[in-house]
Amino acid sequence: MCQLLGMNCNVPTDICFSFSGFQARGGLTDEHRDGWGIAFFEGRGCRVFLDPLPSCNSPVAALVRNYPIHSRNVVAHIRKATQGVVALENTHPFQRELWGQYWIFAHNGNLEHFVPRLGRFLPVGSTDSEAAFCHLLAGLEACHGTAAPEPEALFDSLCALVPEIARHGSFNFLLSNGAWLIAHCSTKLSYIVRQAPFSVAHLADEDVSVDFREHTREADRVAVVATLPLTDNERWTPIEAGSAVLFVEGEALARRRCV
Amino acid sequence: MCQLLGMNCNVPTDICFSFSGFQARGGLTDEHRDGWGIAFFEGRGCRVFLDPLPSCNSPVAALVRNYPIHSRNVVAHIRKATQGVVALENTHPFQRELWGQYWIFAHNGNLEHFVPRLGRFLPVGSTDSEAAFCHLLAGLEACHGTAAPEPEALFDSLCALVPEIARHGSFNFLLSNGAWLIAHCSTKLSYIVRQAPFSVAHLADEDVSVDFREHTREADRVAVVATLPLTDNERWTPIEAGSAVLFVEGEALARRRCV
Repeated sequence: MCQLLGMNCNVPTDICFSFSGFQARGGLTDEHRDGWGIAFFEGRGCRVFLDPLPSCNSPVAALVRNYPIHSRNVVAHIRKATQGVVALENTHPFQRELWGQYWIFAHNGNLEHFVPRLGRFLPVGSTDSEAAFCHLLAGLEACHGTAAPEPEALFDSLCALVPEIARHGSFNFLLSNGAWLIAHCSTKLSYIVRQAPFSVAHLADEDVSVDFREHTREADRVAVVATLPLTDNERWTPIEAGSAVLFVEGEALARRRCV
Repeated sequence: MCQLLGMNCNVPTDICFSFSGFQARGGLTDEHRDGWGIAFFEGRGCRVFLDPLPSCNSPVAALVRNYPIHSRNVVAHIRKATQGVVALENTHPFQRELWGQYWIFAHNGNLEHFVPRLGRFLPVGSTDSEAAFCHLLAGLEACHGTAAPEPEALFDSLCALVPEIARHGSFNFLLSNGAWLIAHCSTKLSYIVRQAPFSVAHLADEDVSVDFREHTREADRVAVVATLPLTDNERWTPIEAGSAVLFVEGEALARRRCV
């Protein structure tokens, strides 16, 4: 299995603190050694850093850890390969363009005997994950035609598409188009919303703390989603298995059962 | 205007030497300060490093310069903005998926009053360049349907699409799908093919030399394409204005007039 990390905020925020603990899971404190990747939205643009090396000794991860990129939506993934060889084309997150927006997807889980309904989005690599992403995009386009819907309408149609994939196995995923972040939990996924009054957080994977009072303004709001809680002194909310949460502006705006 | 750098090889090769001179043009030895990017194909996969900062002081460029990624096809770009603000979404190269392959495009030039024929590929940013890329992909798909053609057939149909764009202004570009590299010259573009017997090359932008005899095997062949020759002791071949060259396995395999 893999590990997911996502962030959705109301102001551009750097993810260095969370990424620091997350990165350690890529071969150091955990076994996820088969590559990693992270996507940062900045305005309408998106940059994706990918490396088929373990994140704990990836020079690209060292850059990401030390270069504070400020983003309102981030999706990161550390891979433990189940389907598809360890190769760049099988490294999450995956990117496509739909409705003149970049879409980013990362998956933790394993889908057995899943045959995607492929329209105009075709997988480049050989993972079940990228196939599921292409299937979702084709389904969303079939629902909404040529114009991007509002986030809540999009969330509804996405949730309607999930069960036909999720019945093939575990399907925890993060999806973002830069305006919102959707997190679907099939087995394991938690989140935290940090907002005023801010306090001190301590990483679970490394002895590192940050005092968010020194780095935030009163109105800031940041949601962080992860396979396992990244800090050991804050209360994370588990997402119920079979449910999805829509995050907008750092807030858990909507929740749906996807069954 | 901008600067282009491309590489096509018959064995995975690192571009650190060429990139070193090229990077200096992003604000140090030249005026192209409005962002830069580089795409590396590795197998079917592709990773794109983008930075809206000038390449001469971009931490991402420092990484690329010092982390030897071995690739058979590379496309890089340093931007001097003409159309579209300086922003990540307007930073080249651009990426899309077609026929289950990643396609990478970078443009040097300026297109006036160009209205793209947009099908299913939509621009995310506001540059003439990304619009032209989307137009080309829609045209190629209209020509070849749902299956990727052989490189030479693709090259023919691409060359047939170029004039309707190039009549709007200067349209130097690099395009690759990871199997080949196509370079179109509208005003300025040169290339060199390095093969045995290898010798010493000296950068034009920095006092740096490399002895390729120490880094190559007899059968290696590497084509490098750039807006301006990157070395000052080798013979670069200018691509004739209005022509395109198809590079496969480090060789200039075909040439066409695109008029």
